[in-house]
Amino acid sequence: MPAYATNMRLKFPIVALVLEIITIILFAVFAVYDDGKSHGHHDAHSNETHHEEVAPMELYPMFQDVHVMIFIGFGFLMTFLKRYGFSSVGFNLVLAAFGLQWGLLTQGIWHLDDGKIKINIFKIINADFSTATVLISFGAVLGKTSPVQLLIMTVLEITIFSINEHLVANVLGANDVGASMIIHAYGAYFGLAVARVLYRPSLRNGHENDGSVYHSDMFAMIGTVFLWMFWPSFNSAIADPGFSQLTAVINTYLSLAACVLTAYAVSSLVEHKGKLDMVHIQNATLAGGVAVGTCADMNIGPFGAMLIGFVAGIISTLGFKFLTPILASKLGIQDTCGVHNLHGMPGILGGLAGIVAVALGKKKGGDAAMQAAALASSLGFALVGGAVTGLIMKLPFWGQPPDQNCFDDSIYWEVPEEDEENEESLAHADHSKNKAEV
Amino acid sequence: MPAYATNMRLKFPIVALVLEIITIILFAVFAVYDDGKSHGHHDAHSNETHHEEVAPMELYPMFQDVHVMIFIGFGFLMTFLKRYGFSSVGFNLVLAAFGLQWGLLTQGIWHLDDGKIKINIFKIINADFSTATVLISFGAVLGKTSPVQLLIMTVLEITIFSINEHLVANVLGANDVGASMIIHAYGAYFGLAVARVLYRPSLRNGHENDGSVYHSDMFAMIGTVFLWMFWPSFNSAIADPGFSQLTAVINTYLSLAACVLTAYAVSSLVEHKGKLDMVHIQNATLAGGVAVGTCADMNIGPFGAMLIGFVAGIISTLGFKFLTPILASKLGIQDTCGVHNLHGMPGILGGLAGIVAVALGKKKGGDAAMQAAALASSLGFALVGGAVTGLIMKLPFWGQPPDQNCFDDSIYWEVPEEDEENEESLAHADHSKNKAEV
Amino acid sequence: MPAYATNMRLKFPIVALVLEIITIILFAVFAVYDDGKSHGHHDAHSNETHHEEVAPMELYPMFQDVHVMIFIGFGFLMTFLKRYGFSSVGFNLVLAAFGLQWGLLTQGIWHLDDGKIKINIFKIINADFSTATVLISFGAVLGKTSPVQLLIMTVLEITIFSINEHLVANVLGANDVGASMIIHAYGAYFGLAVARVLYRPSLRNGHENDGSVYHSDMFAMIGTVFLWMFWPSFNSAIADPGFSQLTAVINTYLSLAACVLTAYAVSSLVEHKGKLDMVHIQNATLAGGVAVGTCADMNIGPFGAMLIGFVAGIISTLGFKFLTPILASKLGIQDTCGVHNLHGMPGILGGLAGIVAVALGKKKGGDAAMQAAALASSLGFALVGGAVTGLIMKLPFWGQPPDQNCFDDSIYWEVPEEDEENEESLAHADHSKNKAEV
Repeated sequence: MPAYATNMRLKFPIVALVLEIITIILFAVFAVYDDGKSHGHHDAHSNETHHEEVAPMELYPMFQDVHVMIFIGFGFLMTFLKRYGFSSVGFNLVLAAFGLQWGLLTQGIWHLDDGKIKINIFKIINADFSTATVLISFGAVLGKTSPVQLLIMTVLEITIFSINEHLVANVLGANDVGASMIIHAYGAYFGLAVARVLYRPSLRNGHENDGSVYHSDMFAMIGTVFLWMFWPSFNSAIADPGFSQLTAVINTYLSLAACVLTAYAVSSLVEHKGKLDMVHIQNATLAGGVAVGTCADMNIGPFGAMLIGFVAGIISTLGFKFLTPILASKLGIQDTCGVHNLHGMPGILGGLAGIVAVALGKKKGGDAAMQAAALASSLGFALVGGAVTGLIMKLPFWGQPPDQNCFDDSIYWEVPEEDEENEESLAHADHSKNKAEV
Repeated sequence: MPAYATNMRLKFPIVALVLEIITIILFAVFAVYDDGKSHGHHDAHSNETHHEEVAPMELYPMFQDVHVMIFIGFGFLMTFLKRYGFSSVGFNLVLAAFGLQWGLLTQGIWHLDDGKIKINIFKIINADFSTATVLISFGAVLGKTSPVQLLIMTVLEITIFSINEHLVANVLGANDVGASMIIHAYGAYFGLAVARVLYRPSLRNGHENDGSVYHSDMFAMIGTVFLWMFWPSFNSAIADPGFSQLTAVINTYLSLAACVLTAYAVSSLVEHKGKLDMVHIQNATLAGGVAVGTCADMNIGPFGAMLIGFVAGIISTLGFKFLTPILASKLGIQDTCGVHNLHGMPGILGGLAGIVAVALGKKKGGDAAMQAAALASSLGFALVGGAVTGLIMKLPFWGQPPDQNCFDDSIYWEVPEEDEENEESLAHADHSKNKAEV
Repeated sequence: MPAYATNMRLKFPIVALVLEIITIILFAVFAVYDDGKSHGHHDAHSNETHHEEVAPMELYPMFQDVHVMIFIGFGFLMTFLKRYGFSSVGFNLVLAAFGLQWGLLTQGIWHLDDGKIKINIFKIINADFSTATVLISFGAVLGKTSPVQLLIMTVLEITIFSINEHLVANVLGANDVGASMIIHAYGAYFGLAVARVLYRPSLRNGHENDGSVYHSDMFAMIGTVFLWMFWPSFNSAIADPGFSQLTAVINTYLSLAACVLTAYAVSSLVEHKGKLDMVHIQNATLAGGVAVGTCADMNIGPFGAMLIGFVAGIISTLGFKFLTPILASKLGIQDTCGVHNLHGMPGILGGLAGIVAVALGKKKGGDAAMQAAALASSLGFALVGGAVTGLIMKLPFWGQPPDQNCFDDSIYWEVPEEDEENEESLAHADHSKNKAEV
């Protein structure tokens, strides 16, 4: 397959090392520890400035919850593919590890203090958040992109994210505490735009490796459950301390709980013989966390949060069942993980709920028009940014895998070979076979 | 198998949606955020009222630890069965997600403030706790019940739990900070009573699917270790802030550590050739956390906590080896996960240790007679409540699985089929075969 | 195999029970709860005494992060071997559970207050830390030692660790907040010395079970990612509260992030066709956490931390590729997990970085000579202590496994047998075969 040039020996190391060296130089120039004496500290996702009084380590447990969501949650959620587990959790790790450094820079540049980015727990939470956009988009193109392509996507997507975030939070002054719009909708539509540009007609009828086996679905549930449990931290981490934060926790907790019931109910309703489908359970149970994000710290009432989760679980499950196949066949959007159903539509739902809630006066000082502008901005940056990024990723020298090697670790990883002498060990024979082919 | 009516297409979605809609309506009527201005706040598991002064988010890290125990801990602990992993972690998720909503209502109803349930972190910890009773009982009937039956059990078990909890904590004024009696003993004997009513004579000689494979035992260890690590949070989350909480953490930490040693030692002592048995390791290592629960915040001394753990590890392992087979063969109690050994006997041991500790003056204001009454009450509610619940679950239209489909995900889940063309992939061929049968 | 006496029925239970009973007696004599009234409280890893003012539960979330690293992190990191998962996570649990009790005693003995060890969160964090040394050494001898041998190693290694720790922290007054020297370098070289003494010539050409399968590598990634995420807690848990702690978190976060990029880049650079090797990814991505340990709370700048991580990722990956085979073939050191690359060299790098940082005045009151003495002391105690411990472990009655049964759970565990009737279930047939052989 010389046309594809999938051999990564020089390309990937060079890109990774050059990016890391540039990043370290930028940190040497711009980054210092926050000594607590700054006066120019602004919230990234809200227009309040209440965080100065916080003790340096106050948010640390919240940070760790978000950290687990990024590295275990997103990483394992994508391990459902039978032969793509190494790549799912492994590329997730390297993209997020680079992305958080890049996000610290691109977010920090808007909030310089004496020309410096002062790093604290609040900033590293936001850096982790910025990587979530990339990990969502990664889900859309999972199995069809090389690590070099993904590193390039990381640089571009986080840079554009930081511009849109600044616009939404600081220019428009919109509310999006749980980031339904600026992370979930943005990450999903960015990824879908990339997927559209990278459309592979020959995969229209599926691919033999684009499916799960029993234990890969179990690994994916580790990701699902960690995301589900810690989502209240995601939605409340950067809320104002005290009762706003408590409100965000309770709303997210209840929205997710309600969402689980509707995801299960609708999965059983639409599937053959009323059976449950692991794809729905792994993903649609989380839609309540996405959809309640924008309103999480608003006074929508416990029952309002549950209604949002209730609707999100239904929309998301129906999306997996009916919309994803249509997107692939009619629009040429091959969305491997169905991020449109988990992050796209629930993200828009969250943005719309935010407009309504602000219009109903559920958030002091909110402005429904600005909420609407924030949603439009997030979608616009996502679609345009994703399309441009997709075009750059399509350049032939980034090592994009050929169709027949999609969804297969063995193109980028040393996959364990079975012992030839031991004829009983057939369990993973498929892997060794595959490896030989490459 | 028309007699069993296992097709879930309408039954399960309708029950799940109706329960969720009723719950949302009740939340609309009763539930509000706790604004910190309440004056009628009572501890659920103790008769103190010290929690008012706590900052709204103070208990949040503890809550997250408990949350992980409920959703990862219990969920993965039950994945040891070779073909029942989807159901173990998946039903665990939906039962706990519904149960926590229901528990918020049934626990909250005893502590109304201006006619409202004021939700805060303390209350959602208790809501998570209430689901633990159901998850323990689920372990007893694992593999032999439909999700509809389990939802019904959830409603009834949590309702009865909330009555007993109110009686124990507020009427009797007994101490049970780590809930040895009101959660562990209650959940275990409730589940055993249900299992007795649902007795299946044809499974007397075992079932081919009622066992583990290598990797399913590995998944179960994820559950075990997360439960083991976060148990100090379970036992201290609702203790009085400060030194009581510290005492509960230290006692639980040490009891669990001592328990591991005896569980391993006795497992090796009773097994063939001195080998260790994964069933013991997955379960009996946790008995120290159960057994120290009631005394956790009492002044029993580090060494007292270790003695409790030491004994619990022995009792629990011996129970798995010798008692579980007898319960099944002589009493018709088929206890899939051996909850009697992990939660039942150690729960009673915890209750008895509490009586002794209070009698010895290890807890200011404690009353040994009230401790004994609390234990009796918990066992009584469990056995009667479980028997009645079992009879309701036995009604023929809830979709109980036929004997031959027990312990098998494919009756309720779409299980990944292997690619027919790919003859090397025998690893999961058993699943596709099974699926065809159903 | 009577010469090996691998039957554990009496040996292991007796050793485990006797150790636990002795420990409980010592706790009865020496251990009490810390009531907050002590005045002789000293930091174990630094020469400051600022912890008195801390509220009793302040460090609890940090403790839980460390706890997860010890039990999930180390436990699952070692599950990469195809047939040694039960032992990896199971022995990890029992060694750490005993080790933390023993560590509380041997560390506490240096800090008696009215003749008592006053247990608090700070002390149980340090107890967990002490077990890390054993778990690192366990990695060096993984698959080649019996649980009895490992319990003996635990007693000796933690005792010697506590002496060296006291010397380094209290006598030399050296800084090692993240324990690059006293835990990582010490644990690694201790384990390598043991491995040298227990050298098995017949394993020179490898062993058929000394390798991974696809899903065992996935389980190992659970360990890797949890270690990676919570390492900032490991390095900051016992730092001075406030900005020192924040500095330790930020330095570790950034060092680890930079380290991931170089570990991936170098893995691809040195492997066949530029592929990534799971062994490197599972281990070398963590070297940045080890190497930044000593300097974590020093004012080295975010960019300094990233440089340390950058170098650590390179050294560690190159070590796996080139040095480990040489150690095995030339020096007779068979290092199963490659702890020399993850803990040994990065630990020394951390110690050297600490000397340089202190010499450059990055830590108030530090003394470069004392830093160097601390590194030398840690290595000296490790090599001598490990050699002596290895000789004791080599005594013939501890049940060391014969060469052909190395790396195989079935010598110490009941491994699930496949159903003979079910001919489709070939997935784990190898296990049942193996079991029959033993």
